[in-house]
Amino acid sequence: MRKRRVAVLGATGAVGQAFIRLLADHPWFELAELAASERSAGKRYSDAAHWLGGEIPATVRELTVVPCDPAAVKAGIVFSALDSSVAGDVEQEFARDGRLVVSNAKNHRMAPDVPLIIAEVNPEHLALLETQRVRRGWEGGIVTNGNCSTIAFVSAIAPLHRAFGLRRAIVTTLQAVSGAGYPGVPSLDALGNVIPFIRDEEEKIEEETRKFLGVLDGDAVAPAAVMIGAQCTRVPVENGHTICATLDFENQPSPEDARRVLCEWRGADVARGLPTSPERPVVLRDEPDRPQPRRDVDTGGGMSTVVGRVRQDPVFGGIRLVAMAHNVMRGAAGAAVQNAELLVAGGLLPEP
Amino acid sequence: MRKRRVAVLGATGAVGQAFIRLLADHPWFELAELAASERSAGKRYSDAAHWLGGEIPATVRELTVVPCDPAAVKAGIVFSALDSSVAGDVEQEFARDGRLVVSNAKNHRMAPDVPLIIAEVNPEHLALLETQRVRRGWEGGIVTNGNCSTIAFVSAIAPLHRAFGLRRAIVTTLQAVSGAGYPGVPSLDALGNVIPFIRDEEEKIEEETRKFLGVLDGDAVAPAAVMIGAQCTRVPVENGHTICATLDFENQPSPEDARRVLCEWRGADVARGLPTSPERPVVLRDEPDRPQPRRDVDTGGGMSTVVGRVRQDPVFGGIRLVAMAHNVMRGAAGAAVQNAELLVAGGLLPEP
Amino acid sequence: MRKRRVAVLGATGAVGQAFIRLLADHPWFELAELAASERSAGKRYSDAAHWLGGEIPATVRELTVVPCDPAAVKAGIVFSALDSSVAGDVEQEFARDGRLVVSNAKNHRMAPDVPLIIAEVNPEHLALLETQRVRRGWEGGIVTNGNCSTIAFVSAIAPLHRAFGLRRAIVTTLQAVSGAGYPGVPSLDALGNVIPFIRDEEEKIEEETRKFLGVLDGDAVAPAAVMIGAQCTRVPVENGHTICATLDFENQPSPEDARRVLCEWRGADVARGLPTSPERPVVLRDEPDRPQPRRDVDTGGGMSTVVGRVRQDPVFGGIRLVAMAHNVMRGAAGAAVQNAELLVAGGLLPEP
Amino acid sequence: MRKRRVAVLGATGAVGQAFIRLLADHPWFELAELAASERSAGKRYSDAAHWLGGEIPATVRELTVVPCDPAAVKAGIVFSALDSSVAGDVEQEFARDGRLVVSNAKNHRMAPDVPLIIAEVNPEHLALLETQRVRRGWEGGIVTNGNCSTIAFVSAIAPLHRAFGLRRAIVTTLQAVSGAGYPGVPSLDALGNVIPFIRDEEEKIEEETRKFLGVLDGDAVAPAAVMIGAQCTRVPVENGHTICATLDFENQPSPEDARRVLCEWRGADVARGLPTSPERPVVLRDEPDRPQPRRDVDTGGGMSTVVGRVRQDPVFGGIRLVAMAHNVMRGAAGAAVQNAELLVAGGLLPEP
Repeated sequence: MRKRRVAVLGATGAVGQAFIRLLADHPWFELAELAASERSAGKRYSDAAHWLGGEIPATVRELTVVPCDPAAVKAGIVFSALDSSVAGDVEQEFARDGRLVVSNAKNHRMAPDVPLIIAEVNPEHLALLETQRVRRGWEGGIVTNGNCSTIAFVSAIAPLHRAFGLRRAIVTTLQAVSGAGYPGVPSLDALGNVIPFIRDEEEKIEEETRKFLGVLDGDAVAPAAVMIGAQCTRVPVENGHTICATLDFENQPSPEDARRVLCEWRGADVARGLPTSPERPVVLRDEPDRPQPRRDVDTGGGMSTVVGRVRQDPVFGGIRLVAMAHNVMRGAAGAAVQNAELLVAGGLLPEP
Repeated sequence: MRKRRVAVLGATGAVGQAFIRLLADHPWFELAELAASERSAGKRYSDAAHWLGGEIPATVRELTVVPCDPAAVKAGIVFSALDSSVAGDVEQEFARDGRLVVSNAKNHRMAPDVPLIIAEVNPEHLALLETQRVRRGWEGGIVTNGNCSTIAFVSAIAPLHRAFGLRRAIVTTLQAVSGAGYPGVPSLDALGNVIPFIRDEEEKIEEETRKFLGVLDGDAVAPAAVMIGAQCTRVPVENGHTICATLDFENQPSPEDARRVLCEWRGADVARGLPTSPERPVVLRDEPDRPQPRRDVDTGGGMSTVVGRVRQDPVFGGIRLVAMAHNVMRGAAGAAVQNAELLVAGGLLPEP
Repeated sequence: MRKRRVAVLGATGAVGQAFIRLLADHPWFELAELAASERSAGKRYSDAAHWLGGEIPATVRELTVVPCDPAAVKAGIVFSALDSSVAGDVEQEFARDGRLVVSNAKNHRMAPDVPLIIAEVNPEHLALLETQRVRRGWEGGIVTNGNCSTIAFVSAIAPLHRAFGLRRAIVTTLQAVSGAGYPGVPSLDALGNVIPFIRDEEEKIEEETRKFLGVLDGDAVAPAAVMIGAQCTRVPVENGHTICATLDFENQPSPEDARRVLCEWRGADVARGLPTSPERPVVLRDEPDRPQPRRDVDTGGGMSTVVGRVRQDPVFGGIRLVAMAHNVMRGAAGAAVQNAELLVAGGLLPEP
Repeated sequence: MRKRRVAVLGATGAVGQAFIRLLADHPWFELAELAASERSAGKRYSDAAHWLGGEIPATVRELTVVPCDPAAVKAGIVFSALDSSVAGDVEQEFARDGRLVVSNAKNHRMAPDVPLIIAEVNPEHLALLETQRVRRGWEGGIVTNGNCSTIAFVSAIAPLHRAFGLRRAIVTTLQAVSGAGYPGVPSLDALGNVIPFIRDEEEKIEEETRKFLGVLDGDAVAPAAVMIGAQCTRVPVENGHTICATLDFENQPSPEDARRVLCEWRGADVARGLPTSPERPVVLRDEPDRPQPRRDVDTGGGMSTVVGRVRQDPVFGGIRLVAMAHNVMRGAAGAAVQNAELLVAGGLLPEP
């Protein structure tokens, strides 16, 4: 199959770099254009970006950065790693201009006609894209993934919700510094420390989860009636958000039942076999001291959510567990690339 | 006042060293003897211990380590920093021999006739010491402090419990590596990682809290009817356990009410003004990103519990908060020294 | 004695905060004014500063920040924690206006008529202040301390240079992140990493050392003929620069001789007994694995340089050693405050 | 080609686990047996080992651990990850029994008839194996790689030595915690700290380097006349030893000449194209702030040594540079596996 040309908006930042690593050698997409702020536009990518990984892939090193403007970008599919301070308008301009914007930014996630998707969890919500196009008169459109910690949480609990009906959840997150981008968290804040606050993060978990777990009803998603209380902390970990959750269900499962459901979960059919989909969206570990971000973050190429310590909860009579996922892969750039693959597989994109 | 001679059992370990730092220049106690395992006995202390701090206090550097045997230790008050593998028997031998054992070990904490004390929270439980002496026919006795993460938790929520009646609590801990002693946590486990498991820790929090908050009824403590679910994690922090708690009360307070109670809390009268007591047992921080272990761990000489992010909890309709305390000071050696001071102030020790 | 009123320029940054901690309760100085950039001027200090330590000292919390302008600052002694991008001009304005500027900034350090001082090492260089005043027609003046890693190095080797004549030195530094200020080093660069580059740092060590060790000759300092090769690295340590040095001397000492000289060193007479002077400017440790920043950084209130591993060097036949000092105290704010004390003690300041 | 059956001695430790990761899917070797101490023998490998990585390779998970005894191990090639406390004797027993021992242990490295090999640097030293067999009457034999920090250093400077004749070197190492194995360095020693001492490490660098760079002369290696002074430190980095070196040559090269030589270096012909050999044994980075362990440690599959900051040295008039290599791969297990491949490629092993 001929590869589809794609662009990355916000290509010099930390998430933009993650997109580049994922797309530099992608079987379905050809990374043809890199767009960034005016300050970077016109420069060679290797001069414009403070590259955080080992080496810049050879195929993009010499690309000239273009501005984040539909007039300057030709690709029909654009991945947005834009900062939320600019993503709102720029993404709309691209969508209005007929591009399919696959976005990691938070700006449009909660709009009623914008799909908020985890490929294995709620691919049917992609139907909102048609609503969006009709309502807004766009040929293009915007598809979003969730916030990194929400994705880690929802990936782990979605199969349990489906089986037992989640009612309430109390979660504490221990989030990696890469979630704040670069330069992000100063080392004087991070080294040997815990910061018990991440702006807007708790609200995102509480709201986005209800949309992810919601039911498509005509041209809207009815949010799930799940009550969530989140406390978010930053810990000195490079990659991998850890989530300690206490879960209350309509039909309280035994820990064995919960483990079985997690173990058997393979995600929505349409998401299986996509290039970025892991074999198992949830990997259950039985050891008492797992998951651990340093050791488990690359499970399934960074796209699996690793779950452990599935036990009875004495307060609700529900389930306690610990989930961990790679915040940059499973929680950001990898999720977006997988969403784009889902669009291709679902025939929602014109032929290249 | 003449100082009372005291000894430290388990003087070479991490908690033992903390006792030494606290007692080297104490106004009421004279650190006269250091006891440790047979391997160390007979050596000069500076040769026996792998000292973890800056410099060994001059007054103990040259002391000869003696065995943990009542025949070898003369002091009437002995602080126990013994490992739980030996503390059970050794502490009983000392108590039987007429010594007052002020212990940080877990072995006897939950025995019905052993006081489990936080000086500011439940000093009246010291009355169990008399029961213990009568029941066991001892002239000495054993008084304990709690597990380090339990103390941090209980110190923060005791005033709220007293005011509003705690019913349920869901807590996640982010614990410092010093809580595991030395050598303790291998750096390959700790660096840039989270370990979501600390053996027996969750059980201790769930059980000890009920005893701490219990009511003295005749010669026993009736445990508080509080249901607690704990998830304990280790994070790469040197000192300071952080606790994210969601609290459900009989009479749900508003966040303002909760803050007011915490702000006004000065602890039990008898604990005020003890040499190790901080001016404020709970220090409330209003900044959205506090408490932080690196920045707040030494508040009140390491004896204050710092609380922040007091907010409404959407799940129970109760209160969410973050508490942080120095696990070695407030949570271990400092708590024990303060307990000994309480015994002195309460006239529960014979004159020196 | 009546305290002298002092001001801090650049009071909101990391070094400015260190000045505040040192001056909030100083026996000779009264911290009366805080100056910072236009952005902060007019605000309450507690609103203007992102305070990095535990709590802002009560005495400064409510002070209103003034601009860094001689017209807005009244104090006769001003401590400069200004960034080098502005320190050059601002410090001159204050000096021209009759103020004594005690500066931590790099801008004027290497000017021939500006004293570059470590109180225990080369207090006689303060004589340059008179030259400066005459030459520039100033009533005030500028006195500087060195770069943080230079001070750590020079403090350790000055007594050896004096005794044996240093000719060549090869040094590798392992520097703490606080040396880069706040926000400074991003945590994604620092966590679990070594960065083998600190801009301009190697040049500073190579040049400033020669001036520190130089001999006052009339109205100038003749730089010492010492050849230095430095490699500077950043390591994930909060405070404390570690320096591995290989030293070649005119008269090669034995390790025993070197240790003896270091052990007996008390620094220049005039520096002894100043409020900020440690009892021992160099503390020699005999353990094979010391100094360590985490354990030794607060030695002498953070003002001692701790030296260990003094051994023969097989390449030059000289001496190898490891030195470590607190980069914010001994290497920055503490050094400046000590320099101001030296000026007071030497009668170089008018009566308050 | 049929794969040769191999065993790993000391299979449960950190280096043993690295061997397993390298050999689990090796094109030339079949990992057939795992041997460890008596305590582990008889257990399933997954029960015997505290696995440090993500998941144990499926092919070894169920293997039963056997004792480190030639009677219990059948393979003709055995990789030794044994601790030096037992490696001396055990390796000799295997060699005497006709096995080819490819060892990472230090015990036999400096024996005159034992090859100490870096495949790209001195493969011709393998000729010592014949001397060893003759002299000791063994059919098997022992081949060793160097200490992890020595390998990182020698890999970087060998091409320069060959071109310009190294005479003197002063090196400071910043070593990762994984170099100490597991449990290894306690986190209370490592977190936010530098430990300026690693037992025996400096001696190994000083001695092994001379053997690596030595010239094979008949049946012995004449050590190179290079004088080395090393200072070794431990830093809180997981993997990757960083080395700051100052180098003095017979024919002092310009930095450009040194860079050209490093850039063109491809290693000895016989080492090229081995399964574990990287395309470039030395990767030169031009950015001022590289190499960095976190970002560069996996260069060349962890088998390249990354070099940067090649500059003139003002003290000798030679060259300064910074080198970094993966201590477990390039510096230990990877080096040994590559050595075994070299033996196969050189026909020094009987057909499988």
